[in-house]
Amino acid sequence: MKRAIIAAGTLAFDTLETPSGKKERILGGSANHFSIAASLFTRVEVSAIIGADYPLDYLRTLNKREIGTSNVEVSSGETFYWCGKYTGTMNEAETLSTHLNVLVDYDPVMNDVAKKCEMLFLANLMPTKQLKVIEGAEGAKLIICDTMNFWIQNNLEELKKVIKKSDVFILNEHEVRILTNELNIIRALKKLATMGPKTVVIKRGEYGALLYREGERLFSIPAYPIDEVIDPTGAGDTFAGGFVGYLATCPDYNDFKEIKKAMLYGTVIASFTIEGFGSEGIMDVTMDNIQKRYNELVSMIKID
Amino acid sequence: MKRAIIAAGTLAFDTLETPSGKKERILGGSANHFSIAASLFTRVEVSAIIGADYPLDYLRTLNKREIGTSNVEVSSGETFYWCGKYTGTMNEAETLSTHLNVLVDYDPVMNDVAKKCEMLFLANLMPTKQLKVIEGAEGAKLIICDTMNFWIQNNLEELKKVIKKSDVFILNEHEVRILTNELNIIRALKKLATMGPKTVVIKRGEYGALLYREGERLFSIPAYPIDEVIDPTGAGDTFAGGFVGYLATCPDYNDFKEIKKAMLYGTVIASFTIEGFGSEGIMDVTMDNIQKRYNELVSMIKID
Repeated sequence: MKRAIIAAGTLAFDTLETPSGKKERILGGSANHFSIAASLFTRVEVSAIIGADYPLDYLRTLNKREIGTSNVEVSSGETFYWCGKYTGTMNEAETLSTHLNVLVDYDPVMNDVAKKCEMLFLANLMPTKQLKVIEGAEGAKLIICDTMNFWIQNNLEELKKVIKKSDVFILNEHEVRILTNELNIIRALKKLATMGPKTVVIKRGEYGALLYREGERLFSIPAYPIDEVIDPTGAGDTFAGGFVGYLATCPDYNDFKEIKKAMLYGTVIASFTIEGFGSEGIMDVTMDNIQKRYNELVSMIKID
Repeated sequence: MKRAIIAAGTLAFDTLETPSGKKERILGGSANHFSIAASLFTRVEVSAIIGADYPLDYLRTLNKREIGTSNVEVSSGETFYWCGKYTGTMNEAETLSTHLNVLVDYDPVMNDVAKKCEMLFLANLMPTKQLKVIEGAEGAKLIICDTMNFWIQNNLEELKKVIKKSDVFILNEHEVRILTNELNIIRALKKLATMGPKTVVIKRGEYGALLYREGERLFSIPAYPIDEVIDPTGAGDTFAGGFVGYLATCPDYNDFKEIKKAMLYGTVIASFTIEGFGSEGIMDVTMDNIQKRYNELVSMIKID
């Protein structure tokens, strides 16, 4: 079983600063990170927009990994740009600047290849565009969605519509707290689950991830232990890539046991991501590398 | 199998402020919280000092729970007093004031009952006093030790001697970071394990606990989900009480599997603690209550 996934999000230039150094205008963006991770499991179709400054050669690099780019719109403007900084324990990024550029007038349209994909991942993007993608993704049977604090604070009404249409909602701890107005994470989870999604996944950085599934079922896993974190950028998107990628290969993606395993795959793939700047850490990862860390992670939570 | 435990630490008056309210001068202290928790599993002998202002009736309350108080010294001074406040996510206390009082001249001496105990728990106390307790606890075969940031910052050399003599060292995340000068928790753990203890336990508040055992073996568990935290005071001590208490009942307390189970018991008992002020939440807990949450916690980390 190998369902195809639409990854709707951003292709971007990122300038990143961490205690390990600084990288200027490297290739990034939520759809980029997600699709590299998910392509380890199945075929991915990217839905995004790029500007005239984006290196088209890089799309060929993606194509070599079973990542389709026929839904990537090339515009005459400038590509989306994000500049961020991580300090201390590096659990959260500080945004130094965001230039939306071509994203402002982006009007996502799905072609026939995308319309046939059975899974849809909505990476962090303006909620209005996410709604447009949901409309276009006619074949999507499972909708997994991510967001960020900016949209919670500035586009809450549209975001609520997206949440209502999502089967799985993935967000970080700070985001679920401001979205639900609950400091207690258990209450926050339960509140979010009443807003639409049957499954909520909380990303907690170095503390791992927490899953809430309707019927009050919780599952918690630690982060894979990494003793030298280089750059956390993309960890959330590649977590989602591993999570959705694995589910795309499961006969029943509603099976709680498979959803738990998907959490483990997401966590392992994120662990490779943070060992390099941008997507450096994950580019050459193999299924053998993944399986080895998967087994180590299982042993970290196994009692008997 | 039921080994007895010496609990060396403080009996105190605590003034506590949390988002749920304020309590003035209630009975607390590390040895109090620990021994109430550990007495759910086995006999505990408290080693501590109290002032003339301490209600002796309360010692009788402890005695009814298999907690021996023949090593509690009654001094003419004032009992140790701590005043703390919790805000926001309540993961760490802010100390508003500490009056050491009778602790200043405390010279812990073990009587014959204490000398026969096979397990020694050194709750948070001045490292010089902890060393004196280790000397006196002649029968102790397993030494488990806790500390706090104050001693790391002000008595590091003495604390290092305590660490060297400890088999299990329990501390919180912030403490292990300042103690080892490592922000990365995995590197911090490994560094601490080279300083003496074969086993290190990191308490992470709402994120659960992380265990490192020599030979690079890690085990991680989440906190038991509590949707209304009243007061986190004593959670660390009762975690240790459940942890050491369970180990005291194990035929082999060096068995990694038993150490993992001890982490689960500690976590469950801490979860009851935070549901009330001081030791209110744990006073009437039964083994049935504990076993129920233990099973729920196991299901939160179980994949199959």
